[in-house]
Amino acid sequence: MPVTNRQIRLARRPVGPVRPEDWARTEEPVAAPEEGWFLGRTRYLSLDPAMRGWLDDRPSYLPPVGLGEVMRAGSIVEVVESAHPGYRVGEFVSGTFGVQEYVRSDGRGTHRVDPALAPLPTHLGALGMHGMTAYFGLLEVGALKEGETVAVSGAAGAVGSLVGQIAKLKGCRVVGIAGGPAKCAWLTGELGFDAAVDYQNEDVRRALRTHAPDGIDVYFDNVGGPVLDAALTRLAMHARVVVCGAISQYNNEQAVQGPANYLSLLVRRARMEGFVVFDHAARYREAAREIAGWIADGRLTAREHVVKGGVDDFPETFQMLFRGANTGKLVLELT
Amino acid sequence: MPVTNRQIRLARRPVGPVRPEDWARTEEPVAAPEEGWFLGRTRYLSLDPAMRGWLDDRPSYLPPVGLGEVMRAGSIVEVVESAHPGYRVGEFVSGTFGVQEYVRSDGRGTHRVDPALAPLPTHLGALGMHGMTAYFGLLEVGALKEGETVAVSGAAGAVGSLVGQIAKLKGCRVVGIAGGPAKCAWLTGELGFDAAVDYQNEDVRRALRTHAPDGIDVYFDNVGGPVLDAALTRLAMHARVVVCGAISQYNNEQAVQGPANYLSLLVRRARMEGFVVFDHAARYREAAREIAGWIADGRLTAREHVVKGGVDDFPETFQMLFRGANTGKLVLELT
Repeated sequence: MPVTNRQIRLARRPVGPVRPEDWARTEEPVAAPEEGWFLGRTRYLSLDPAMRGWLDDRPSYLPPVGLGEVMRAGSIVEVVESAHPGYRVGEFVSGTFGVQEYVRSDGRGTHRVDPALAPLPTHLGALGMHGMTAYFGLLEVGALKEGETVAVSGAAGAVGSLVGQIAKLKGCRVVGIAGGPAKCAWLTGELGFDAAVDYQNEDVRRALRTHAPDGIDVYFDNVGGPVLDAALTRLAMHARVVVCGAISQYNNEQAVQGPANYLSLLVRRARMEGFVVFDHAARYREAAREIAGWIADGRLTAREHVVKGGVDDFPETFQMLFRGANTGKLVLELT
Repeated sequence: MPVTNRQIRLARRPVGPVRPEDWARTEEPVAAPEEGWFLGRTRYLSLDPAMRGWLDDRPSYLPPVGLGEVMRAGSIVEVVESAHPGYRVGEFVSGTFGVQEYVRSDGRGTHRVDPALAPLPTHLGALGMHGMTAYFGLLEVGALKEGETVAVSGAAGAVGSLVGQIAKLKGCRVVGIAGGPAKCAWLTGELGFDAAVDYQNEDVRRALRTHAPDGIDVYFDNVGGPVLDAALTRLAMHARVVVCGAISQYNNEQAVQGPANYLSLLVRRARMEGFVVFDHAARYREAAREIAGWIADGRLTAREHVVKGGVDDFPETFQMLFRGANTGKLVLELT
């Protein structure tokens, strides 16, 4: 059965926001898998702000996506044909399979996901890279201690919503920063955050003074820009600023806006630290087990924002991230 | 003996560089010290970039100098009259006595200095706050390890010149960043740095690539601005950026220029950490003993840039710091 595989490739390096012309849709036949390989059909694609960084031609924690290459993306595929000893037809596999309908894989860098443990999209969110990022960023890099005050930006996003909930589970006061009243209501309602700051309609600096009167012990930053600068003015002594991302800056055509208030690190004897989740791979299993337990107990809400469509819908769906149009983990379900 | 005390007071809060009109010179009589106090005559005044920050009316690690107050400054005074049980006439005392010719003190926050151990100005530099800043900033905050590569900005200044030398003593490769060929020659000559980068005449980023080909493990920053941004592009994995100061930004009339390349902290899994030397006061004695030993052995050069004059020369001498006109610790000797 030769199948036609539709793919989204990087056609041109974007300058500023990604434009439709920066992508190309291609089709090619997929042959049956050879010995030791399997063929997977993509069911769910993970969409993530960090993917914007992979499009720029500069050194980073991963090499840039090459021009003409299939766009790199995490996904969950269903095994439709297998000559691989570890995977059987009908099983679900997670890996960095790219924005395409089918993938042939020898299984390296993949793992089986159990749909009985949680719905498939959750394996791309709370039980996937986003859960790992929130867990290790907050607990290891942020060195969170019970009773501390945590602030998190991008708080209604895939990582931020988990960061705040994990901090609550660890006995901390949590202030989320998000865009718009609906997201803020979700944070303080269903997710149980202590307070939410609507950066679109509030003075973030003043609101943080109100909601974190003793200062912020751990600030988990997903956005950069003016929100980071506001948070830097409210650090407690010996605070930790966890640099996870800077979505407000990824589409800049000019230089990134650096944090003008970084000297508060000196005044507050604080540190700002970056991390890449891959470094914690040896402990993924342990973290996923703990997160899965919280979900099963109803103590942690894993929310995915699922858009249904085809690979052709990838470009437009990806842009939702930069408009703040998603709440929770953004996933494209290929139907 | 009523003496006339000349003082330099803060007359106006400077906007941008400090202007002569921002200071006022006053005179007042000084009475004899009462029981438990001593009268000191200022011999050496410490001039330090951090003093610029004390002039701004904003919260920091110390309260701002009040309008009309004698300018805060560290100094060494000679006891000229004493009703204090711990200090005798003729002894030398270090403290934050301010920019004035005489001071009455009850001894709190002061300590005796031994002119036999090192020349008096050295007690304001390598054996004073600057030595402590270099020592604890590099070894504690920077968590320096033998064999690492260290870069330091403001490398020919009071703190930077000590940072580089201590790093050499700890078995590290050291690259100093300073302004002008004379300073750079001093760094690689007398001080034994492995390399020096002249930020006035070289592309700092490119020079760091040459002199720290495997990246910078500890970057000790005294200057901020474009030099900090250049160093951020050259961090090694798990690097530590020690935020000690930002002299390039202290006279800004607009906002501080934040480090646009701060996301390299993420890519390099690095941290940027601030500190205030006072937090290490419990270990000053231990550090001063080690530094004094290095000086005595000829393994560490303590250089002071001594300007002779009166308190009236303070305003102009202070500005030398921001022109990069000093090499080593800037001291005003009252003659």
